[in-house]
Amino acid sequence: MEIPLTPLDFLRRARKLHGLRIGVVDGDRRWTYSEFGARCDRWSSALQRLGVKHGDRVAYIAPNTHAQLESFYAVPQLGAVLVPINFRLVADDFRYLIQHSGATVVCAGADHLAAVESIRADLTGVAHFVSLDGPRDGWLDYESLLTDASASFTRPAIGERDLLTINYTSGTTSRPKGVMITHRNAWMNTVGMLAHWPMTPADAYLWTLPMFHANGWTFTWTVTAAGARHVCLPKFDGPTVFKTAAREGVTRLCAAPTVLIMLASSPAAAKALAPRGVAVMTAGAPPAAVTIQRIEDDLGWSVIQIYGLTETAPAISICEPLPEHQTLSQDDRARIKARQGVELITSGELRVVDDQGNDVPLDGKTPGEIVARGNVVMAGYYNDPEATEKCMGDGWFHTGDAAVVHPDGYVQITDRLKDVIISGGENISSVEVEAMLLRHEAIQEAAVVGVPHEKWGESPHAFVVFKSGQSATADALRTFCRGHMAHFKVPHDFTPVTELPKTATGKIQKFVLRKGRANINAQ
Amino acid sequence: MEIPLTPLDFLRRARKLHGLRIGVVDGDRRWTYSEFGARCDRWSSALQRLGVKHGDRVAYIAPNTHAQLESFYAVPQLGAVLVPINFRLVADDFRYLIQHSGATVVCAGADHLAAVESIRADLTGVAHFVSLDGPRDGWLDYESLLTDASASFTRPAIGERDLLTINYTSGTTSRPKGVMITHRNAWMNTVGMLAHWPMTPADAYLWTLPMFHANGWTFTWTVTAAGARHVCLPKFDGPTVFKTAAREGVTRLCAAPTVLIMLASSPAAAKALAPRGVAVMTAGAPPAAVTIQRIEDDLGWSVIQIYGLTETAPAISICEPLPEHQTLSQDDRARIKARQGVELITSGELRVVDDQGNDVPLDGKTPGEIVARGNVVMAGYYNDPEATEKCMGDGWFHTGDAAVVHPDGYVQITDRLKDVIISGGENISSVEVEAMLLRHEAIQEAAVVGVPHEKWGESPHAFVVFKSGQSATADALRTFCRGHMAHFKVPHDFTPVTELPKTATGKIQKFVLRKGRANINAQ
Repeated sequence: MEIPLTPLDFLRRARKLHGLRIGVVDGDRRWTYSEFGARCDRWSSALQRLGVKHGDRVAYIAPNTHAQLESFYAVPQLGAVLVPINFRLVADDFRYLIQHSGATVVCAGADHLAAVESIRADLTGVAHFVSLDGPRDGWLDYESLLTDASASFTRPAIGERDLLTINYTSGTTSRPKGVMITHRNAWMNTVGMLAHWPMTPADAYLWTLPMFHANGWTFTWTVTAAGARHVCLPKFDGPTVFKTAAREGVTRLCAAPTVLIMLASSPAAAKALAPRGVAVMTAGAPPAAVTIQRIEDDLGWSVIQIYGLTETAPAISICEPLPEHQTLSQDDRARIKARQGVELITSGELRVVDDQGNDVPLDGKTPGEIVARGNVVMAGYYNDPEATEKCMGDGWFHTGDAAVVHPDGYVQITDRLKDVIISGGENISSVEVEAMLLRHEAIQEAAVVGVPHEKWGESPHAFVVFKSGQSATADALRTFCRGHMAHFKVPHDFTPVTELPKTATGKIQKFVLRKGRANINAQ
Repeated sequence: MEIPLTPLDFLRRARKLHGLRIGVVDGDRRWTYSEFGARCDRWSSALQRLGVKHGDRVAYIAPNTHAQLESFYAVPQLGAVLVPINFRLVADDFRYLIQHSGATVVCAGADHLAAVESIRADLTGVAHFVSLDGPRDGWLDYESLLTDASASFTRPAIGERDLLTINYTSGTTSRPKGVMITHRNAWMNTVGMLAHWPMTPADAYLWTLPMFHANGWTFTWTVTAAGARHVCLPKFDGPTVFKTAAREGVTRLCAAPTVLIMLASSPAAAKALAPRGVAVMTAGAPPAAVTIQRIEDDLGWSVIQIYGLTETAPAISICEPLPEHQTLSQDDRARIKARQGVELITSGELRVVDDQGNDVPLDGKTPGEIVARGNVVMAGYYNDPEATEKCMGDGWFHTGDAAVVHPDGYVQITDRLKDVIISGGENISSVEVEAMLLRHEAIQEAAVVGVPHEKWGESPHAFVVFKSGQSATADALRTFCRGHMAHFKVPHDFTPVTELPKTATGKIQKFVLRKGRANINAQ
């Protein structure tokens, strides 16, 4: 017997088996899975009345609220396609993404109504604008529509190859591309998460990671599948995370390394509020070992790393702990935890290949490109067959990430292929230099990029954020680096900055730094 | 991107990531995953040379040895279909199953060569007979074939809907039926097991459950998927289990309730050898709460129950522990653990319906039939479209098990539909009466069947096995029962027996008892 693989089945199960359990918390409001499911059904019903049909696109611009979470069930239940947009972008981006996706309904949170208003005249394909956080002139009101909606709707047949969401890439170098995630893709990633990072109905998950980002690494569905509790958090800083975690009995959260740095750098008084034993999943950029160690030491939390891309829905590797890691020193364990690890049980095959497509040796030294093949890989880029062909036309998805493979098979990213610095014919991993800088006592964050150099072709240039009240001279930093790494890798120059430019998900935008460097040079 | 869901991918991953880890132990012999995988490849290669092609059937009659385990990869790698036969059957059964499956190769363990010899003349469709445990005249020798085989073979394309195994039902009432399990079925069950009962490379799994039985509840693949260690055990009693578990650092095993009773009834000196903290999965028949309690108290092991049938590959429910169970008394917890529970995250939908197909109320009282719909349900019965249509023609697989649903949604089997005793218009659950009898201090095992009764239509009749050196009169047992349950449920008669007739997997064969009772009456 075959029934479609769809994450919608997880809500069916949660409503049936955990109907009376609190499923969703958002500030002071809380809903059982039964109530949450009923709200999703009403929203499906309202959207159906607004004319949304199988295959139609519904766009959202909203932070981590219960309404955003509801969209991950209400829209796909209609066979429609959810387009969760990065709410940290600007009006011009919103215009492009809404137009490119062909969304006919746009739903926005309070902070984003004005931006949408400013481009509304251009959005001629959009039939309905919905305000998620309360009534607003010229907008349909989410809660009123829910109240007026029927409790049931006509459920269309949904196949596992149907589109579930379109997620736009962060577009650090070019126009964002629309990643087509199918029901099967998301189902597969969810069960993979559960097989490697098991959750139970006793768990509470804190929404620090944006839901729109590769659908919160599938936790929009994973938490529901486990019958665990979603704790929404639309805005946060360190103290809010710690206070909410303590109040709601949080046991799990996901966070990019930059968020981990932010948490680890919170005042001691705030950190004292944090519950112990929270399990943290990190991804989005290679975390430095020292970041992992600070979180584990200061907070008593445990960190596991996954790796993937929006195009892989997203996880294609996990830094799975092995029995033999238990006997390592804490330092060595943190060093291993900073690796991207091995393919998941459900994610298919992962390889690191040279430019002839041959596997690189397992020597921890020879870099290649990470490629993947499996059921978590997207169906393709929306309306962009050329880009699709380019990245997966040979049957393998090419990540564009450069990595080495250690003798135990653990993959470690050395850089984005385009961020590798080539100096005097030597490859320099910017990630490695950054990890070294983070070991300096005065440095909170660092980013290293290659800049043109007359003699060496490129030379490494570091941008550093100092810890509050601390600093160091370029000479001191240079000496520190020379004491710990090959001299050709040591940055030639150091630029202190107050913060690093980042994407919404915490990825450092190195192209902005390169441009900035060029401007500095030009002055 | 879509690649076929197949449990073969788990071996690919284990070889790559856990190649140097011991994967399989059988007595004094042990193989790394790399060595085990190489043996599987050689056997695939040898079978290919013997002419086995995609779709061909290869039958095995063997206990839990490494060779049997190898078959679960070597045969399907060719796109061929494994037919693992219950080795506790007799020559007549072997003839029927080999002929019905159309197997062209038969592989047998040492203890079963003679039985196959005795019917060999009838097996005209079989081209090759393979002795698994050493050379034998007139048989091909497994190890010699492996040694002579090439290290590689031609891998055919395999689709997820392709047949993986044919597993014959125990046939308690009629000729066994061939359950067609697809690659997708088995893959699905494996990841479901891991999501609910997570295993890691640090785990060692003891093979007490026969591998042939619904493919060892998918643990033939699940253990490999986790990179954990298979510990084979071809024959066992209590002391062997405890000794092997201690020697190999066993952390997991599966066992039918009758095996649990056997373990719990072992001498104290043997039990003292057992490692603490082993996690046990039980299924195959509803276990009594007292059995679970004895295993947990005496051995310090923890028991979880799953439920399913060969036709469901096999798990369609799991008695998932909930946070609120933690605060219950040990008695109440054991009572809940004796329930069959709720559908797995990956197993699809499970319902209990009346004969109009409506869900029964969640009152813990109203019985209905368990039906299931999901990706673990078989493709159908081999060469038996009529039986297939009968059990799943309406889109739901009908289990033939009668159950109630408790207010928390947990399903509890009251009986096989055909084993329900109807006495004076009242339904009596034989399982309930048996659980009560097991609470009597003198009783080790019990089975209750309905026998014809002039006045009441049927009356309950109990067959009991006393603990060594103990006994009780029928009157005493009757009084005990009357003190604890409705009088109409109390057995009218008690027959002491030295053992109960059982299927190879520990299911009590009530039809044998009914026939026995009829014979007693006839004498």
